[in-house]
Amino acid sequence: MKSLQDKIAQFVSDRDWGQFHNPKDLAISLNLEASEVLEHFQWKSNPEMLEYAKSHKEEIGDELADVLYWVLLMANNMNIDVVAASERKLAKNAEKYPINKSKGNHKKYTEL
Amino acid sequence: MKSLQDKIAQFVSDRDWGQFHNPKDLAISLNLEASEVLEHFQWKSNPEMLEYAKSHKEEIGDELADVLYWVLLMANNMNIDVVAASERKLAKNAEKYPINKSKGNHKKYTEL
Amino acid sequence: MKSLQDKIAQFVSDRDWGQFHNPKDLAISLNLEASEVLEHFQWKSNPEMLEYAKSHKEEIGDELADVLYWVLLMANNMNIDVVAASERKLAKNAEKYPINKSKGNHKKYTEL
Amino acid sequence: MKSLQDKIAQFVSDRDWGQFHNPKDLAISLNLEASEVLEHFQWKSNPEMLEYAKSHKEEIGDELADVLYWVLLMANNMNIDVVAASERKLAKNAEKYPINKSKGNHKKYTEL
Repeated sequence: MKSLQDKIAQFVSDRDWGQFHNPKDLAISLNLEASEVLEHFQWKSNPEMLEYAKSHKEEIGDELADVLYWVLLMANNMNIDVVAASERKLAKNAEKYPINKSKGNHKKYTEL
Repeated sequence: MKSLQDKIAQFVSDRDWGQFHNPKDLAISLNLEASEVLEHFQWKSNPEMLEYAKSHKEEIGDELADVLYWVLLMANNMNIDVVAASERKLAKNAEKYPINKSKGNHKKYTEL
Repeated sequence: MKSLQDKIAQFVSDRDWGQFHNPKDLAISLNLEASEVLEHFQWKSNPEMLEYAKSHKEEIGDELADVLYWVLLMANNMNIDVVAASERKLAKNAEKYPINKSKGNHKKYTEL
Repeated sequence: MKSLQDKIAQFVSDRDWGQFHNPKDLAISLNLEASEVLEHFQWKSNPEMLEYAKSHKEEIGDELADVLYWVLLMANNMNIDVVAASERKLAKNAEKYPINKSKGNHKKYTEL
């Protein structure tokens, strides 16, 4: 991840694009790319969707890469350690969703 | 990243949640979490937004972690190597946006 | 619609909120409210989703009303006649999707 | 609005598309179209955005029409009276945001 994040930072700095980056516009880009992931699955029934997912791994990988790009860029821009934040969040979620209560059960923690 | 992805896979398998996961619903979750990142910057002028970003790094880090969680989970679920996909995508983008044409210039590649 | 749009304009002007409204922030609000509609259907299988839709008409009506609020407010703010725009768009779509080619067929017009 | 909603219902029934419509996929379409509205304002500073909004009224009108299309179609599909829902929601919001507390003040009702 660190290495990918460095490559992205280099890509941006080579093009002198940092001047355009601010959290609000980065968050907009993040949302627009997340929409493009979702667009792949629109109007597909369950079996169509599963079949499509298998046969379009490269296209969907490209879209996930775009989302990841903005996550890492936004973390860079705001000086957030997103791996540390993820581990902290997983620990919070492990408390909210204790294994004995949530095993095989997809209820929201407020309803457990 | 691989280690984070493994922790997420473990978190899910401890709770036997894989049965609920399919690409369409994962893509929906990804979009809902991306919205929560954006919500932080709504109705903020440029200076308010920059000030807010500085003073809310933990909250925004939590939201970015949630987006990253679904990116990695979706990659796991679809058996996509998202780091390889990201490097492939960066290479494509480096061709679309050659440094000499795009330096200091935020035009879309179709308009370069 | 005109009457609803007038009520919304009045609601905003009574609170002197027009000063905060600009197309970018309005478009962000529109997206956040659209997400809240989608959130209702997350993680629901087809039969669960249909059952939920029947039993939560008021809640979903509230969310659709929120989306409509921002559509109408944005149209007001930008001085766009959204009913005329809708009729123009329907006419364009009727050409893109001629009945004889698209009847019972949900393909995108580029694939018809 | 009723007349527009009838035209949309006719457009769909002429093409026998009702069979594809379910609340979850309609909500996805609603979100994808809302993203297209937002995309117009990405990476634009305040003055650029205002200038762009003036000079692209037709394009943005088209996108707002697309969002409205899915709002009305979803309301049709779920048998929701979206005008009544909007008036009910405005009344709720008028209580949440009393004029004397919220005039010229864009705080969320939880902070008034």
